[in-house]
Amino acid sequence: MATEKTPDVASSPKQIRASVLHGAKDLRIESRSLFPPGPTDLQVAVRSTGLCGSDLHYYGHFRNGDIIVKEPMSLGHESAGVVVGVGSDVTNFSVGDKVALEVGLPCEQCDRCKEGRYNICKSMNFRSSAKAFPHAQGTLQDRINHPAAWCHKLPQDMSLDLGAILEPLGVAIHASRRANLAAGASVLVFGAGAVGLLVAAMAKISGASNVVIADIDEGRVNFAVENKFAHRGFTVPMKRGSSIEENLEIAKETAAAVGKIAKESGEPVGELDAVFECTGVPSCVQAAIYATRPGGKVLLIGMGTPIQTLPISAAALREVDIVGVFRYANTYPAGVEVVSKKGPDYPDFSKIVTHRYKGLESAVKAFDMAGKTKDGEGKLVIKVVIETDDEEKSNL
Amino acid sequence: MATEKTPDVASSPKQIRASVLHGAKDLRIESRSLFPPGPTDLQVAVRSTGLCGSDLHYYGHFRNGDIIVKEPMSLGHESAGVVVGVGSDVTNFSVGDKVALEVGLPCEQCDRCKEGRYNICKSMNFRSSAKAFPHAQGTLQDRINHPAAWCHKLPQDMSLDLGAILEPLGVAIHASRRANLAAGASVLVFGAGAVGLLVAAMAKISGASNVVIADIDEGRVNFAVENKFAHRGFTVPMKRGSSIEENLEIAKETAAAVGKIAKESGEPVGELDAVFECTGVPSCVQAAIYATRPGGKVLLIGMGTPIQTLPISAAALREVDIVGVFRYANTYPAGVEVVSKKGPDYPDFSKIVTHRYKGLESAVKAFDMAGKTKDGEGKLVIKVVIETDDEEKSNL
Amino acid sequence: MATEKTPDVASSPKQIRASVLHGAKDLRIESRSLFPPGPTDLQVAVRSTGLCGSDLHYYGHFRNGDIIVKEPMSLGHESAGVVVGVGSDVTNFSVGDKVALEVGLPCEQCDRCKEGRYNICKSMNFRSSAKAFPHAQGTLQDRINHPAAWCHKLPQDMSLDLGAILEPLGVAIHASRRANLAAGASVLVFGAGAVGLLVAAMAKISGASNVVIADIDEGRVNFAVENKFAHRGFTVPMKRGSSIEENLEIAKETAAAVGKIAKESGEPVGELDAVFECTGVPSCVQAAIYATRPGGKVLLIGMGTPIQTLPISAAALREVDIVGVFRYANTYPAGVEVVSKKGPDYPDFSKIVTHRYKGLESAVKAFDMAGKTKDGEGKLVIKVVIETDDEEKSNL
Amino acid sequence: MATEKTPDVASSPKQIRASVLHGAKDLRIESRSLFPPGPTDLQVAVRSTGLCGSDLHYYGHFRNGDIIVKEPMSLGHESAGVVVGVGSDVTNFSVGDKVALEVGLPCEQCDRCKEGRYNICKSMNFRSSAKAFPHAQGTLQDRINHPAAWCHKLPQDMSLDLGAILEPLGVAIHASRRANLAAGASVLVFGAGAVGLLVAAMAKISGASNVVIADIDEGRVNFAVENKFAHRGFTVPMKRGSSIEENLEIAKETAAAVGKIAKESGEPVGELDAVFECTGVPSCVQAAIYATRPGGKVLLIGMGTPIQTLPISAAALREVDIVGVFRYANTYPAGVEVVSKKGPDYPDFSKIVTHRYKGLESAVKAFDMAGKTKDGEGKLVIKVVIETDDEEKSNL
Repeated sequence: MATEKTPDVASSPKQIRASVLHGAKDLRIESRSLFPPGPTDLQVAVRSTGLCGSDLHYYGHFRNGDIIVKEPMSLGHESAGVVVGVGSDVTNFSVGDKVALEVGLPCEQCDRCKEGRYNICKSMNFRSSAKAFPHAQGTLQDRINHPAAWCHKLPQDMSLDLGAILEPLGVAIHASRRANLAAGASVLVFGAGAVGLLVAAMAKISGASNVVIADIDEGRVNFAVENKFAHRGFTVPMKRGSSIEENLEIAKETAAAVGKIAKESGEPVGELDAVFECTGVPSCVQAAIYATRPGGKVLLIGMGTPIQTLPISAAALREVDIVGVFRYANTYPAGVEVVSKKGPDYPDFSKIVTHRYKGLESAVKAFDMAGKTKDGEGKLVIKVVIETDDEEKSNL
Repeated sequence: MATEKTPDVASSPKQIRASVLHGAKDLRIESRSLFPPGPTDLQVAVRSTGLCGSDLHYYGHFRNGDIIVKEPMSLGHESAGVVVGVGSDVTNFSVGDKVALEVGLPCEQCDRCKEGRYNICKSMNFRSSAKAFPHAQGTLQDRINHPAAWCHKLPQDMSLDLGAILEPLGVAIHASRRANLAAGASVLVFGAGAVGLLVAAMAKISGASNVVIADIDEGRVNFAVENKFAHRGFTVPMKRGSSIEENLEIAKETAAAVGKIAKESGEPVGELDAVFECTGVPSCVQAAIYATRPGGKVLLIGMGTPIQTLPISAAALREVDIVGVFRYANTYPAGVEVVSKKGPDYPDFSKIVTHRYKGLESAVKAFDMAGKTKDGEGKLVIKVVIETDDEEKSNL
Repeated sequence: MATEKTPDVASSPKQIRASVLHGAKDLRIESRSLFPPGPTDLQVAVRSTGLCGSDLHYYGHFRNGDIIVKEPMSLGHESAGVVVGVGSDVTNFSVGDKVALEVGLPCEQCDRCKEGRYNICKSMNFRSSAKAFPHAQGTLQDRINHPAAWCHKLPQDMSLDLGAILEPLGVAIHASRRANLAAGASVLVFGAGAVGLLVAAMAKISGASNVVIADIDEGRVNFAVENKFAHRGFTVPMKRGSSIEENLEIAKETAAAVGKIAKESGEPVGELDAVFECTGVPSCVQAAIYATRPGGKVLLIGMGTPIQTLPISAAALREVDIVGVFRYANTYPAGVEVVSKKGPDYPDFSKIVTHRYKGLESAVKAFDMAGKTKDGEGKLVIKVVIETDDEEKSNL
Repeated sequence: MATEKTPDVASSPKQIRASVLHGAKDLRIESRSLFPPGPTDLQVAVRSTGLCGSDLHYYGHFRNGDIIVKEPMSLGHESAGVVVGVGSDVTNFSVGDKVALEVGLPCEQCDRCKEGRYNICKSMNFRSSAKAFPHAQGTLQDRINHPAAWCHKLPQDMSLDLGAILEPLGVAIHASRRANLAAGASVLVFGAGAVGLLVAAMAKISGASNVVIADIDEGRVNFAVENKFAHRGFTVPMKRGSSIEENLEIAKETAAAVGKIAKESGEPVGELDAVFECTGVPSCVQAAIYATRPGGKVLLIGMGTPIQTLPISAAALREVDIVGVFRYANTYPAGVEVVSKKGPDYPDFSKIVTHRYKGLESAVKAFDMAGKTKDGEGKLVIKVVIETDDEEKSNL
């Protein structure tokens, strides 16, 4: 396959613009020097970046849970763009190729990396995460250099917004693999945000016959069903008990109610093959355990309360396995296949992006919108994307 | 769940009619005595029975490969019907329930049975197979008694022809499980007969993005694609070499041609995640090995030439696993879910049944048709079904 | 294989003696009528019965957790004996065969049973458990009738005490299968009671290179290492914090300490491939999560506190799966192989039985001893066995 | 962990000596320039190199099957040595460390690499293989530079001959993983050469209760059992039929004979859980299929006749999977654990090395010996090792 080497990337650095977080809600546009790509790198003009919950935490608090930002950091890690420079040793990319960026760079040397579970590499360097120091800068920049091995070529007719969605979709693909779903399965997804919608869609695509999505917001539930992400929906009532025992009773009721919807009849409690928990809320994790059949799986996807009180015997004695899902590994090629398909019954992935902002300078507005559940006109906020165009802004 | 006990099944036997094979092409309608169902049995009025390749072999030769028929035997094992009697210990069925029959009765005591792989139980007693003696009589009878544990309740609105299809669909479900397909997979199916079509459909439903079906008959290939069983088709040219080396070269060419269709571009040989071989023809098995990617799987489903010359190193050195698929285990509940779904992009399972014959006395005509690839009007013959109605014929 | 039919079992019932629990600590020897074995049953003279924690709970409280005894019930489910009667349809057993009893009778009809996970069958009828009603009577009887399919023939030179141990060993085999241990693995076992010892032994036998066993009792730890059940031991200090946060810190310390022993050097926290939790104590489950490496497994074996507060993110974010182990399925044939082996480095399974009592009338003494951790002479109490001999006591 | 940087490796190349193959049986000692290690490399003084079958083929024919040598090439890929130089970015190795070399360098970019199956990477660059061009030079050199990520630290008290054995042991570990053996399994190994012995040992260590090793040479069989590599042995009679049917009958007889030994009684044909085929000889592959139980696995490890005539239905209809084993992935850490253990019942891995030669100049003698099955004194030749000592020879 011919590779067009890039004549326009000289050996001296060029100036690019980056959106950089300096403190809570202190986002600045700055100029940065970008060297030509190294021998095994690509230089990519970032065109579309989705905002994620972790970005929002950093933006709002200059930290994410226990992880504190220690130096100015660009946010953004759900990105796709266009190749503008090709490293000297790279043979399978050309200038002009559309690519999605897999932004977590694992060490490639530890046992986990070598066995293919690089998502849980202890030395993972993940863009826009402050866990490692110096921080791996995020993608909210005009251009970045990124290893070609972690860039994924997209069909030229695929929108770059869809390319950006491959990142959260990776979580969903990884979750469906860990669930090891069989055709005909009945599953429940707690949470109808972007990840929950994608998780439900992947369960459907993987052959599950009954995919129920549950959320406290009826609008999100309807959105999920209307756009074919799930077969059915359930709006979780916001009930709270005053003791753990009472809360567990409520969780059992939720499990029963949701199970009835999944199976449409009969005695459905504890009859789901898998429950994908995308909220991290203890009441949902509790209900997930009760709703799963003996031998089924609860997939913990949502990052939530780190210490939880759970009916652990209700899981162990029925061999309901509690399985973590952390990011993704080896999901991009499958993701490209998945979002390339269309059809009347097929989930409409383009609908995930509900709000688009143009240019790095709109980042503050974008983050503010991403923090809401509905916009000023009452429309649901699912995924906010910042679209950039370095040709105009950087005079390339 | 309330169970209506059956008042109309007395303790004395009743006379039913059975279609019984006495020799090659010697099929006779006979009267048989049928006792009331035992305590854990159901009595089922058989309503729809599909004819399978093994039935055809028995019909035509009074044997199936090495297995010789030793006493008069009813054929038929792809059947659904209606419950007309309920054993005294059975609590979860009622008279009038529609059921599909799982006709293989495993020993339930050996290691394979206990670990859930009862399809490879050495003591399996499978209706309409002459392997065990006395033979387990097939389902081409007005009524049969069958253990309730091996009857599967169908939705009351499901057609019994679809119920009968659950048997060959079981093979397809079992094959897709053994393939362990991931969403986004590219697969090839050799053979576009009933089993090949169902296997292709299950691959699609399980998330495979590119399902190519190949057959020597262009009409079957087109049928498969038009009815949504596969994404794409390939008509295999009938080329034969004069030596094993030449044949292997031809197999490589076939693998390359089919691979190109699957991937639509590039260098596709040896890039398929799985190949489902449903013909048993050596040239297809050989091509299957070449067409599969390193680490992929060849599923042997078609019963064909028992001793074959294969490029075994081309499999072993690339860790292409050669995996047998023999009948099915634990597939009926999933099958009910699968055929219950409908949709514009969904495989149309009802199309599998291309020819229907009414009554046991039409069995000879039905077998003759099942032996053809096209009927007198040039229409493809995929699955021939014999529909019976015991109310009229047996005066129940 | 020839089967000697049993001439001494007539069709009228015989009187046998049973040890029957009528209330907390109210154990009585009673006479019961025993019919000849049914067509698919064996009649077994019980010779050795190990006492288990659940037996002790029933004995002490006439209940086991939430499960209340509703009618007089014989205890005992870890049993081996000798065949004294053979049902008319049974062909693979003879009078005089030694057998181990698999006392849980699953429904054999549900999806779990058919897929080979019969241990989590919802309709399981397990001897000496009061869950189902009428209760399935336990094995502390002179003789019982039991389905031949759930009797496991033992080598004639195997002691029946070893045969009785196959029951708790089944839990250990099931646990090692669920852990999917690889050769060279490093594992930790919390709890050095009978189950913990057996679990450690199975990890060793399955190829784990570093098996550390931990207990609060130094004597048990030493016992485990001396008798080759584990490679190394760790005595857990009994430290308790005054808040969940403090307790989690202590759990981290325990994980670190134990990890150091497993790896003998370096930074071992969170580096174990699997932790087998056999105590059910929250502090151990917490430490288990911390001690396991990313991608490893915590196996919940001990039945303990049903609702626990756990550092669930520490599991989920590192994809440490929390996997229940409930009883066992398909373990007896492997168990027979395992306890048949001997060798200088091999775990000495016969040492598990530390105390033996003769005759049903010694049951009260046996239960009292089983409730202790050390006997009057300071010797560890691991497994108490009641040995019976129906020839003397029942005058057979 | 502190890293002692290497002061003795300057930036200019040093001269080292290499054993280089220029044609069939044309092995020459030559001087080569070796640059200091790159930033992520180690420089390793090779101390022990085992000779493998593929080395022997290259040595004898200047080719290996279809692969023709196109430029002078050093042989050797089973090697361990001592670190003499540490690249600037390497932090976890020091000069003086003992290391085993994992000599296959995969691309680390393809799907197979990223999912952890790098052994079947299409772009694998494997030392002493002429598949890629320029060829990756083998390890029969005084020193080599090798990526630190593919060097495995050994305990300082481990002999470097054992370190060299980790390479063929990797094949055995990979085979036992692919077999997914359960504790208590009965298995057969065809071939009692170095790989067969190691495969048998790994099956034993992984919990198989009955490991039978079969070979046509009684001496090898006895060697295997005496040194605890297998539980039992079987000497295969050299019988050949005059037709494929006759040969398959002989294969069935072999399977039956070997099965009887494995199970010690009863009807053992087709009752082994797995058969590890380490010869590549069609008669053994055929017997392997017949000897395996329904649902078991035949592991193809031996590289032999590339096109074979096999009783493929006897595999497919019983779901005996035919599984390739090509080299290894992620086996070295487990291998270090495995060879570190000792015990009276444990396989004595040091016995694998039957012949040792000192210095590169003894290579011709070593290769000649490696081509024999017995040495001049009638002692078995299993593994021939060339031990080198760069301090003397290269005046380091």
